[in-house]
Amino acid sequence: MKVLLAEVNVSEGRNLENIEVMRAALMEGAVLRLLEVNSDKDHNRTVFTYSGEPEEVLEGTKRLAKKAVELIDMTHHSGAHPRMGAVDVVPFIPARDVTQEEALEVARAFGAFLGSLGVPVYYYEEAATKPERKSLVDIRRGEYESFAEKMKQEEWRPDEGPFEFVPKSGATVTGVRFPLVAFNVNLRTDDLAAGKQIVKAVRAATGGYQNVRAIALEIPDKKMVQISMNLTQYQKTPIHRVFETIKSETESRGILIADTELVGPVPVMALEDMMKFYLRCYSFNMEQLY
Amino acid sequence: MKVLLAEVNVSEGRNLENIEVMRAALMEGAVLRLLEVNSDKDHNRTVFTYSGEPEEVLEGTKRLAKKAVELIDMTHHSGAHPRMGAVDVVPFIPARDVTQEEALEVARAFGAFLGSLGVPVYYYEEAATKPERKSLVDIRRGEYESFAEKMKQEEWRPDEGPFEFVPKSGATVTGVRFPLVAFNVNLRTDDLAAGKQIVKAVRAATGGYQNVRAIALEIPDKKMVQISMNLTQYQKTPIHRVFETIKSETESRGILIADTELVGPVPVMALEDMMKFYLRCYSFNMEQLY
Repeated sequence: MKVLLAEVNVSEGRNLENIEVMRAALMEGAVLRLLEVNSDKDHNRTVFTYSGEPEEVLEGTKRLAKKAVELIDMTHHSGAHPRMGAVDVVPFIPARDVTQEEALEVARAFGAFLGSLGVPVYYYEEAATKPERKSLVDIRRGEYESFAEKMKQEEWRPDEGPFEFVPKSGATVTGVRFPLVAFNVNLRTDDLAAGKQIVKAVRAATGGYQNVRAIALEIPDKKMVQISMNLTQYQKTPIHRVFETIKSETESRGILIADTELVGPVPVMALEDMMKFYLRCYSFNMEQLY
Repeated sequence: MKVLLAEVNVSEGRNLENIEVMRAALMEGAVLRLLEVNSDKDHNRTVFTYSGEPEEVLEGTKRLAKKAVELIDMTHHSGAHPRMGAVDVVPFIPARDVTQEEALEVARAFGAFLGSLGVPVYYYEEAATKPERKSLVDIRRGEYESFAEKMKQEEWRPDEGPFEFVPKSGATVTGVRFPLVAFNVNLRTDDLAAGKQIVKAVRAATGGYQNVRAIALEIPDKKMVQISMNLTQYQKTPIHRVFETIKSETESRGILIADTELVGPVPVMALEDMMKFYLRCYSFNMEQLY
């Protein structure tokens, strides 16, 4: 079964009625699995996370985005999170049996659709049309307020839709990115310096594993130190390997692990490697799961 | 999301065209996940394994069973596997967020439907109407050939459908049972006696874990001994605990584990406990998976 994941970030986190109308538009007649609807009042932003067959995900995303463009007026928007449009960012993430090319087709079909509604659209990450458009941060720099000017520059001409700023909708970024695993390890210590040493052992930037971003944080409530990580390519740098390294580094310092956390959606394939490693069940295939 | 599993055993394993017609009837317009269609020519039997929302599973099972009753004539059936009817056995298995009561409702609705088609139906396992109908083996004893006589006995009067034998369809057993995990551990030894000692440590019958059935087998091809197990209630006696016990018993005898096998469909919830144990990720919830 092919599974594509979408994470649609819209610039509305306060009007719960409108958020419900968008959710209903997304799910209308769809065979989609809605994993999360996360609204933040301070950010004034909602993230819809859902998965399904690529065609279903595309159609649902079109319905959701069309409704968001109707309902959200960016000329009145304020919120703590950086943003540039009503439909702000829409990453499509290949989850199971979906190639990058198939995910790109969905992203491009969605971008063209949104462009046809009169929204300027930029492609990012794996869908980027130029290297300087790979990073969301670069595209969104200056935010909504600066886009009327930014779009006048040849280099920031949109990939789809009108070449001029649209005050009501703002602009949208869409594309394809790899699944990310947010993984935290909580240590039974309040020694932040030790935590920082352990981070060095696993973080790519300091000689650790490729595809690992990590920081050490204090959690004063629990009197613990947390190693907070993003694994950007769990296929190449799997969870269990990073965990086992943290375990040995921690134990060698006389510190124990309290527990770990996998935050937010987790690709089912990330568990396959773990099963094989811990249970030595090398023939196991996630397709066996029901 | 509610997930119910069904394993429909039909008495046709040779006529591939008819098996395909049954498969098509099952999947017609349905949102079902077809996990396996396993046909055996010697047994002259096919097992359809699929999962989905309880209502979808019920409707698909009705379509499949109706087609099987049309196509299969038991008066001409022969095969190595014990059987009593065209639609022989239909267990419904609660997989995720489905209570036993919900699964029982599906089994009873299916039984009543099949009865209305003129097929005698018996309920077994959790759906049994009498203690002596709990076991499939007891109900099916004597097989198809003896049922014309068996059904005349008051104690073997069917739960649904006609009280007389129907030569074309024979009779059907349906009900609810718990998910079963088939788990094998392969040892780097050809010492079967050692394997039998290890089996004693985990098997319920010899002082081991509840809900574990186990035997030791030789695998001559690989010069290995296999501990072959059925875990009948993985919720109470989880895979990782049985595995860790086998590991310590094996290592204490100077033997290593080569690998393990999970055979056939595996309930996704069985992995949750494993994740918590090995990764210490106690907050993890399988609903996070996509």
